[in-house]
Amino acid sequence: MNLEYQFQLLLQCIRESKVSVRNIKRGEPFDINNPNHIKAIKARFIDGRKPKHPAEPRTITDSAYLEVMISYYDRKEPRELIEEIHKIAMASENIVGEILERYIANELEPYGWVWASGAVLHAVDFVYRQNDGTWAFLQVKNRDNSENSSSQSVRNGTTIKKWFRSFSVARRKRATNTNWEGFPDLPEGAALTEKDFVIYLREYLQNLRLAS
Amino acid sequence: MNLEYQFQLLLQCIRESKVSVRNIKRGEPFDINNPNHIKAIKARFIDGRKPKHPAEPRTITDSAYLEVMISYYDRKEPRELIEEIHKIAMASENIVGEILERYIANELEPYGWVWASGAVLHAVDFVYRQNDGTWAFLQVKNRDNSENSSSQSVRNGTTIKKWFRSFSVARRKRATNTNWEGFPDLPEGAALTEKDFVIYLREYLQNLRLAS
Repeated sequence: MNLEYQFQLLLQCIRESKVSVRNIKRGEPFDINNPNHIKAIKARFIDGRKPKHPAEPRTITDSAYLEVMISYYDRKEPRELIEEIHKIAMASENIVGEILERYIANELEPYGWVWASGAVLHAVDFVYRQNDGTWAFLQVKNRDNSENSSSQSVRNGTTIKKWFRSFSVARRKRATNTNWEGFPDLPEGAALTEKDFVIYLREYLQNLRLAS
Repeated sequence: MNLEYQFQLLLQCIRESKVSVRNIKRGEPFDINNPNHIKAIKARFIDGRKPKHPAEPRTITDSAYLEVMISYYDRKEPRELIEEIHKIAMASENIVGEILERYIANELEPYGWVWASGAVLHAVDFVYRQNDGTWAFLQVKNRDNSENSSSQSVRNGTTIKKWFRSFSVARRKRATNTNWEGFPDLPEGAALTEKDFVIYLREYLQNLRLAS
């Protein structure tokens, strides 16, 4: 997609709707008539689309949990291996939601959707125009138990649709533990599936790894 | 320690201080003059001291993070092994704070401290009488970045001391990454050390495992 075009579409949405733009810096409210503000969110919008590596926690490991692994769970693996796997598992969990947004953007921007990349909007990840001409807003989460962004911060009157990809608790009546069939307002001709998402995720990460 | 004695001491503290007792059930405020309420918190107080096993997350694994482990981190371990280690590592991390309270109780109750086990008090884990006769309150956390309990819920005028066991970020000027030397109001003759804590934790967990 043409990034300049996508950004102009986002600006149009901000002008025409009540969607709330995040503060520029240190609490300075966004002003659409201020060219410096436009510049600032454009930089964030573009930056948010750069490939991003998973980030392992930088905190020191509390060795007490390794004692639990040994004393209670009787694990025989070396401490370093347990620690490494656990740390990169946390990093891996944390990056999935981001890649999910990239996948949806990749599939739906050709249909006129805009990924509000760089978290430029409050509690909104995607904006798109509905058939009646009004703008719609979607917040995307990887899991039904992910913390919600504070939707309170969104201005009165704006409703934000919410969708999550995966269920955290299994139910017998569900064929899968994913929620793609519940994705709202899918454009005609577009398709989002778990299989395609996993293919996208693998490709994205393999490229990231090879490039680094 | 004699549990009945410890509980009577706790009741004395509740009567003499402004410490806030948690609601009994479904929002019913605790009333010290209601014998059923006394009975209810006593049951929680005693129950909270029963040995407790680490609990693994019951949620379904989101297999997407395992894809990240393979595609980006190039891990060769079987998925099941990664998943198992990560799950029990989370359970292990979650149980450390609880064992920390048990260790402190074990060391300091002989000096007149009371462990408010079963989370019967708001944001308070230990109570003890100070030299001037007034009661003091201590909240204990395993780590400096643990979420704080909402101290707002504590009644006006009651100050709660806070202590955490481990630092999450290393500093060169610190000899260790633990904070035992910062433990407040340690009774004369008592000693709390990381070494003793780890010995206690190992013994507690080995007994738990063998008994199960």
